[in-house]
Amino acid sequence: MLAFNKAIIDATADYCVAYKPNFAFYEAMGAFGIAVLADTIAYIKEHYPDQLIIADAKRGDIGNTALLYARSCYDYFKADAVTVAPYMGRDAVAPFLEWHDKWLILLGLTSNEGAKDFQLQKMEDGRFFFEHIIEKTLEWSNEENTMYVVGATRSEYLQKIREIIPNHFLLVPGIGAQGGSLEDLVTYAMNEDCGLLVNSSRAIIYCDSSEHFESKVRQEAENLRRQMEAALIAKNII
Amino acid sequence: MLAFNKAIIDATADYCVAYKPNFAFYEAMGAFGIAVLADTIAYIKEHYPDQLIIADAKRGDIGNTALLYARSCYDYFKADAVTVAPYMGRDAVAPFLEWHDKWLILLGLTSNEGAKDFQLQKMEDGRFFFEHIIEKTLEWSNEENTMYVVGATRSEYLQKIREIIPNHFLLVPGIGAQGGSLEDLVTYAMNEDCGLLVNSSRAIIYCDSSEHFESKVRQEAENLRRQMEAALIAKNII
Repeated sequence: MLAFNKAIIDATADYCVAYKPNFAFYEAMGAFGIAVLADTIAYIKEHYPDQLIIADAKRGDIGNTALLYARSCYDYFKADAVTVAPYMGRDAVAPFLEWHDKWLILLGLTSNEGAKDFQLQKMEDGRFFFEHIIEKTLEWSNEENTMYVVGATRSEYLQKIREIIPNHFLLVPGIGAQGGSLEDLVTYAMNEDCGLLVNSSRAIIYCDSSEHFESKVRQEAENLRRQMEAALIAKNII
Repeated sequence: MLAFNKAIIDATADYCVAYKPNFAFYEAMGAFGIAVLADTIAYIKEHYPDQLIIADAKRGDIGNTALLYARSCYDYFKADAVTVAPYMGRDAVAPFLEWHDKWLILLGLTSNEGAKDFQLQKMEDGRFFFEHIIEKTLEWSNEENTMYVVGATRSEYLQKIREIIPNHFLLVPGIGAQGGSLEDLVTYAMNEDCGLLVNSSRAIIYCDSSEHFESKVRQEAENLRRQMEAALIAKNII
């Protein structure tokens, strides 16, 4: 596993700005998986210190527990950012903000089918629940310490989200395996500083199951990088 | 840590029906903590096989990730039940139901202050958001495979919750350190099969910081057991 991770990292580091390990896939292997995850992050830190490391852990629990989850992600794994579910409210989120040199990434509107069950339900005042979530969390956090997860499959809501948080960075999964459109994303969600961390995981790391996967993986990463670059040029950002 | 856990377990096993390790406290110590957690659960399984083991992990992510979290809790740690945040919708929950001999424990209405930020907000149709959550999840699960977390500090809503789910078991934190009332809980939430798993953690395990904490810990557990017993007798359940 560690060898595979290192190969993926070495093949893609020229073309990306962040790595987002999904904790579940390591936890499923217990203490062994946790060690591989820690070693993987240490490898990135050592060889590619400019890469942002996002702990994709989607933790969410009451204050005294949230503090320990923050310690796990920030201090033990040494991640730069962690994805957090804000649904238990302020005390589930606040401990993550005590690390002033780290990023909190809150679930805003997720890319999965199940988002319609709760996030896309309407509140008493006519807003969607995800709007309330984002607006409420702005009382506790700001664009200097917090990003939001917004699924690329939710292009019809991207404008509304940008009205609420014009300047925040958005972490956007859903490009690739989940079918989201990079074009819509650029049109509706890119701001004048870019403001997007576009995530492609499965579409890159599993693009080739042969023994010599590295070159195809590198090419997939380069493709997405070129598309982003073209969008940034078209928008006069670079 | 493992020695402390074993001492707590040995001191309390006569007076409880379940153990609910909080994963964050082990994760904060990385692979070492994970090994201690696994060893703690194995110790309970070996010496007290009738105790239910609840992985208090509050996981919640899209389907392919949720499946891996379920594998971690059910297969690696061999927990009998796991707490899950339902907020990402059906696909974040469904994988946990594939283990037919295990329990899913969904967050219903939590005991923390932050519950008012989202769970206690009103929907377009006048219901509280937590009501919608519980009702929606009933489309996918039932009282044979699912319980709900309902905070003991939420006594004013217990009746409403029992109207929606009269027969489900409720996992109730908030007695003890968080100040919830066992009396209210018995009055409003106990059903004819009891239907309650009352959780007290900090109030028991940290009740005595001396070297000989075991006897005080045992006494605290016995006290709560006696209160539950009295309630069960008063309600003609035992």
